Amino acid sequence: MRRLILRLTTLCAALAVAGATYAQIATNAVGRSPWSVTDEIGTLNMMTDQSRLDVLRQISSGKVYDLSVDLFVGMPTCCADAFGDPAYQIWKTHEPTRKEGGALVSHSSDTILMNTHTGTHIDSLNHFGLHGKIWNEVSASEALGDRGWTKSGADKIPPIVARGVLVDVAAFKGVQHLPASYAITPADLEGALARQGSELRPGDVVLIRTGLMTVWPDKSQYQFFNQSGLSLAAAQWLVEVQQVMLLGADNFGLESFPSTDAENFAPVHTYLLAEKGVPFMEVMWLEDLAKDQVYEFLFIGAPLKLRGATGSPMRPLAIPIAAKSRS
Amino acid sequence: MRRLILRLTTLCAALAVAGATYAQIATNAVGRSPWSVTDEIGTLNMMTDQSRLDVLRQISSGKVYDLSVDLFVGMPTCCADAFGDPAYQIWKTHEPTRKEGGALVSHSSDTILMNTHTGTHIDSLNHFGLHGKIWNEVSASEALGDRGWTKSGADKIPPIVARGVLVDVAAFKGVQHLPASYAITPADLEGALARQGSELRPGDVVLIRTGLMTVWPDKSQYQFFNQSGLSLAAAQWLVEVQQVMLLGADNFGLESFPSTDAENFAPVHTYLLAEKGVPFMEVMWLEDLAKDQVYEFLFIGAPLKLRGATGSPMRPLAIPIAAKSRS
Amino acid sequence: MRRLILRLTTLCAALAVAGATYAQIATNAVGRSPWSVTDEIGTLNMMTDQSRLDVLRQISSGKVYDLSVDLFVGMPTCCADAFGDPAYQIWKTHEPTRKEGGALVSHSSDTILMNTHTGTHIDSLNHFGLHGKIWNEVSASEALGDRGWTKSGADKIPPIVARGVLVDVAAFKGVQHLPASYAITPADLEGALARQGSELRPGDVVLIRTGLMTVWPDKSQYQFFNQSGLSLAAAQWLVEVQQVMLLGADNFGLESFPSTDAENFAPVHTYLLAEKGVPFMEVMWLEDLAKDQVYEFLFIGAPLKLRGATGSPMRPLAIPIAAKSRS
Amino acid sequence: MRRLILRLTTLCAALAVAGATYAQIATNAVGRSPWSVTDEIGTLNMMTDQSRLDVLRQISSGKVYDLSVDLFVGMPTCCADAFGDPAYQIWKTHEPTRKEGGALVSHSSDTILMNTHTGTHIDSLNHFGLHGKIWNEVSASEALGDRGWTKSGADKIPPIVARGVLVDVAAFKGVQHLPASYAITPADLEGALARQGSELRPGDVVLIRTGLMTVWPDKSQYQFFNQSGLSLAAAQWLVEVQQVMLLGADNFGLESFPSTDAENFAPVHTYLLAEKGVPFMEVMWLEDLAKDQVYEFLFIGAPLKLRGATGSPMRPLAIPIAAKSRS
Repeated sequence: MRRLILRLTTLCAALAVAGATYAQIATNAVGRSPWSVTDEIGTLNMMTDQSRLDVLRQISSGKVYDLSVDLFVGMPTCCADAFGDPAYQIWKTHEPTRKEGGALVSHSSDTILMNTHTGTHIDSLNHFGLHGKIWNEVSASEALGDRGWTKSGADKIPPIVARGVLVDVAAFKGVQHLPASYAITPADLEGALARQGSELRPGDVVLIRTGLMTVWPDKSQYQFFNQSGLSLAAAQWLVEVQQVMLLGADNFGLESFPSTDAENFAPVHTYLLAEKGVPFMEVMWLEDLAKDQVYEFLFIGAPLKLRGATGSPMRPLAIPIAAKSRS
Repeated sequence: MRRLILRLTTLCAALAVAGATYAQIATNAVGRSPWSVTDEIGTLNMMTDQSRLDVLRQISSGKVYDLSVDLFVGMPTCCADAFGDPAYQIWKTHEPTRKEGGALVSHSSDTILMNTHTGTHIDSLNHFGLHGKIWNEVSASEALGDRGWTKSGADKIPPIVARGVLVDVAAFKGVQHLPASYAITPADLEGALARQGSELRPGDVVLIRTGLMTVWPDKSQYQFFNQSGLSLAAAQWLVEVQQVMLLGADNFGLESFPSTDAENFAPVHTYLLAEKGVPFMEVMWLEDLAKDQVYEFLFIGAPLKLRGATGSPMRPLAIPIAAKSRS
Repeated sequence: MRRLILRLTTLCAALAVAGATYAQIATNAVGRSPWSVTDEIGTLNMMTDQSRLDVLRQISSGKVYDLSVDLFVGMPTCCADAFGDPAYQIWKTHEPTRKEGGALVSHSSDTILMNTHTGTHIDSLNHFGLHGKIWNEVSASEALGDRGWTKSGADKIPPIVARGVLVDVAAFKGVQHLPASYAITPADLEGALARQGSELRPGDVVLIRTGLMTVWPDKSQYQFFNQSGLSLAAAQWLVEVQQVMLLGADNFGLESFPSTDAENFAPVHTYLLAEKGVPFMEVMWLEDLAKDQVYEFLFIGAPLKLRGATGSPMRPLAIPIAAKSRS
Repeated sequence: MRRLILRLTTLCAALAVAGATYAQIATNAVGRSPWSVTDEIGTLNMMTDQSRLDVLRQISSGKVYDLSVDLFVGMPTCCADAFGDPAYQIWKTHEPTRKEGGALVSHSSDTILMNTHTGTHIDSLNHFGLHGKIWNEVSASEALGDRGWTKSGADKIPPIVARGVLVDVAAFKGVQHLPASYAITPADLEGALARQGSELRPGDVVLIRTGLMTVWPDKSQYQFFNQSGLSLAAAQWLVEVQQVMLLGADNFGLESFPSTDAENFAPVHTYLLAEKGVPFMEVMWLEDLAKDQVYEFLFIGAPLKLRGATGSPMRPLAIPIAAKSRS
C-alpha cells in the first residue's frame, strides 16, 4: 500500500515537473542553498549520522563491489579529445639501478598527471556554473583564484556513506548498451526500477547504467561526443521528485551528448551542479553489480581532497544490503 | 583469561623475534609469497568475505572519521625535498570567461600533478625491493617497463575493509609528538595498547600515531629527514607476532628516519614491502580518532587503481565498532 | 669544371653506396666515434671557429628566417598519438586577480609540459640506439639513469653555426607536398639540388622540404604514420657521399613512414643517430625559405640544454649568404 | 670628442631622470606603444634588416659564446620556492627494454615540465602589468584566457639579432659578486662601461653582470629573495637615456630584491614590461664573456614560440665583433 501511494505521488510529481520544465530551465540562474549561506556541498547535506547508521546496519554481505576503472596511459578520456585537457600520464621518478644486484635497496617511485575528470570521478559543484557564478551564488570575481575556485572544491566533499541504488536502464531496454546519444527519460527510469523491483528513497545515491562500460576501454566506441545518458527531464525527476542526494553513471558525462540546447552544451550539468547543488560521478564501473543483480547496497566513497578542484578521481565501493530492508 | 594467554604468547614471540632479528635481516632477500606464485598483494590476501562481514556487523555508529589530509600547492612532501620528485601541483584548464555574464555556461576544469607518495597514501609492494627484485621474487628485468612495474602496482590493491586499531604512542608517552628520529619499540606498542585497553588481532589494520600531525602542515617542523617512526624490531613484532595485515602512520615514512643501517636507508620499508609483503599507509590524519579515543573501528579504504604505480593517494575512513565486540 | 668533377665524384660514390648498402645495414651495430672515445655529439665535431667564421663572413642580408613553428595546446604531435607521450600543455600559475584595479601589480606566469620531440626540435644521439647501446658504444647499463641517459643528451649539443642548404624536393617534383609515405631517393636530392643550382659541401646543415608544412597544423593531414621523408639510401648518400653535418626536415620524423623494414620501425633514425652519429631536426618551418628561394644561408640554432634529454625544442634561424660565395 | 659629447648628454639626461623619477613612477600605469595600437613586442620594434646587417657585418671571430645554463632536476628556480610554481622536471617516456640485446631498436624519449621562467629565459611583456592591464593598455578581460594571455606572449617575440654589450659591474666593483640585495645605480653602469671602454648605443642588447653565476647552482647561495640587481633608476637610465632595446642579467630577477617599494614587489619589472615595453632576460651565463673580456658582440637569440606564454627558455649566443667597430 505504501509503495502504491509512493508510486502515485511520483507520477503526479512527474507530471508537475513536465509542465514546469520550461519555466524552470529558462531561469538559467544558479541556485541559492537551502542549507546555508556558506554551503559548498549541496545535497550532500542530506547525510546525517543516523542516515549513515541506518544503511550500515542493513549490510548483508562481506562482498565488496569495486565501482571504478583502472587508470593507465592511453585510457579513454573525455576531456583530452574534446577540450584539450591533458591525457592521463604516469612516469617513473626512481627505479632500481640497471646494475641490479649491485645495490641492496631497490627504490621505485612515480608521478601522475591527470585532469581531475579522468577515470571514475566525482564532479564538484564548482565544475559548472551559469553566467560566471557557481552554486550558492558565488561569483568568479570573489572566489576564482590562480589555481582554481576557493569554494565548493573536491576538498569540501565529505565521505559519502548512503543507500545506493543501481538503475539498470540497459537491462530494462534489453540492449548491451543504449544507442548513441540516447536520452534516458523519466519513464525509462521508472520502467527500469519496476523491472528490478527497486524503489528510490530520499537521500539515495542513484547509479545509472547505460551499458557503455561493455565497450570500455575501446576509444573508438567509448566516445564523449555521442554517448547516451540522462535527459534533463530525467535529471529533474530524480532530483525534484525522488530527492536523490548523489547521482552517477557509467558514461563520460552522465547526460546524453550532444546537447539539443543550442545555448547550453551541458544542460544537465548546469541544472544539477549550479541550479540544484547535486554532485555526480562519471565513468563508473557498474558491470559487476549488474551481473550479480545487486540493485540496493551501501554506497561508500570519498574523493581525494584536492583543494579547490572541480572534481576528483575516486574509487567508490558497494556492499549489498539485505533484501528485507526494502519494504 | 584469553587475553592473558594472548599476552604471554605475544611476549614469547617477541623474545623469539629479538633473538632472531640479526639472522633474518641479514638475509636481505625479497620474500616469496606463501599465497601464490603470482601473488602481488601480500598480506592483503588475509581478507575474506567473512572477515569483512565480521567487522561490518560490529559497526556501532554512523559517525565517519576521515583519515586523510588535504592536497594543496605548497603542502609538505617528503619526496620533492628529499628525492627530487615533483611537488603537488594543480592548475586550471578551463574557467569561466572574464566576460562574466556574457556566456550562459561557466565551465571550470583542472589538472593535477603529484608524486604517488603525496599526502595520505599507500605504498604498493613494488615501491621497495632488494637487489633489483620486488616481493615474490619478481625482477626488474622481467617486470619493469617504460612507465613502471607491471607487477604489484596500486591497481592490484583490493578495497580494504577490515578491523582497524589506532595505537596512540604519543598519548602513551604523554607528549604532543614523539621526539625527532625516535624509533618506536615493541614495548612502546605494547604499552600504548595496554593504556588504551586495545588488543591486536591477526588481519588488523594497525595505525601508529606519533603525534606529528599536530605540526602539519608546517614544513619547518614536519620534515622527512628526522621524523619519529617504527623501529625495525617494532615492525617485526607487528608482522611476525601480531600478524597485522596493513600498517599506517601519521608521519612521512612509517619508520624512524634517518636509518641507523648504513647500507639501507629504509630498512623497515624493505622489510615490510619486499621481505614480508605488507603494504602500508603514510601521512595519515589520526587526530580526530585520537581526540575521541576511538581505538577500534571499521577501516575502509581503497587507493586509486593507478596501473603499475608504486603507491597511490587514498582517502581512508574509520567508523567506530562496538566496545562489546572487543572482548 | 670544379662542379663537374664534384658531380662525377658524387655519382661514383653514390654507386658505391648503392652496392654497399645491404652489408652496411646488416651490421645493425652502433658506431664508434672517429673523434673521441668520449664523444657525445658525432658529426657536430666538424664545426670549428674557422668553419663558423667562413660562413658568418658570407652573410649578405639582415633578413632573418625563422625555421620553427608555434607551440600551442592542440598542436599536432607525433608522439602523443603514436607512442602515448604527453601532448603539449601550457597552463597559468599566476594571473592578475579578478579584482582588477584593486591591486597595483599584475603578475602572470605559466608552466609548460612537453615531450622533448614536440614542435621544431632536434634529436640527440641518445634518442635511438641498437641492441641497448647508443652512439659510441655506450650501453644502457652504464649510462641510463632514473631520469634518462647521462651521455649524448641535448645539453651536450653545441650552438650550431654553419652553412645551410635547403633542398626543396617538393618544388623539384612540382607538387604541394610529396605523396603519403613517399621515400625520397638520392636521385631526388640530386635533381632538387640541380634545379636550384645548389651544391652541398662537407659540414653543411641540409634541410629537406617535403612540403608537408603546407597542411600544418591540420591534424587530419599532418600525421606521423604516413609521412613522406628520406629513404635510407638518401640518408646514406647525404652522410657518406656528401658528408653533411646535420640534417633537418619539415615532417615529423625526417624519414618516410611506415618503415619497410619489418625489424626496424625507424631505420633512418638508427642509421643516423646510432651508426653514424648524425643528429637531425624535425617539424621545421621551411616555407618562407622556399617561397623566397633562399637555398643557401647561415644556419644558426641551439637547443635548450636539457640535461640528458633525447631531444630538445629549438628555434633555428637562417640568414641568407651571398650568391657569389657559392661557386 | 663625440664620446665626450655623448657622455655629457648622458649625464644631463640622467639628472633629468633623477628629478623626474617620482612623478613618473607614481603614474603606475601601463604604457601605450609608440609603434602601433596592436604592438605586442615593445622595444624589439627597434630592429630592422639594416640594424641586423650592420652588426652581422662586424663579426670578427668564429668563436661562439653560449649564454645559457643547463636545465636539470634540482636546479635553482626562483619561482618554485618563492611562488609555488613547479620546479624543473624531466622524465623518461620510453627507454630500451631491460632485455637489452633482445630487441634491435632501442628507442628513448622524455618529457619536460617547467615554469616558463626557469633557467636562462626571456620575460614577455605580458609577464607583469599594472592594475590588471599589460603593455599597450590590453586588459585581462579582453585578452586573458583559460591558458594565458592572447597578447604579447613569447610566440610574438622575433628572433633577436643585435649589437650586444656586457656591462661587468662585478668587475668594476672588484668583487666576485655584488653583495646581497645591492641595487646597481646609473653611476655603477657608467663606471663599469668606462672601465671596459665600452659605449652603449640605441637599440643595444645590454647584459648586466652581477657575478652571481659564480655561486651557481648552489641553492643556498643563489637565492631569489636577496639578489643584487638593477635599481629602478638604473633601469630608467638604460631605457630613457641609453635607449636600449633589450636587457639581461645573470641573476634571477634582473632587479635588486627585495623591493624597497612597499606597494610593488617588482618595480623594475613593472617599469620595463608594462610601462616601457622592454623585455629582458634572466639567469644568463655571462662568465665566459667576462673571462675573455668580450664586451661587445653580436647578440643572437630567440625564445621558443610558446603561444601566449609570459616567458620562454632560450639559449642566447654571442659572437665577438671587431674592436675597430667601436670608434
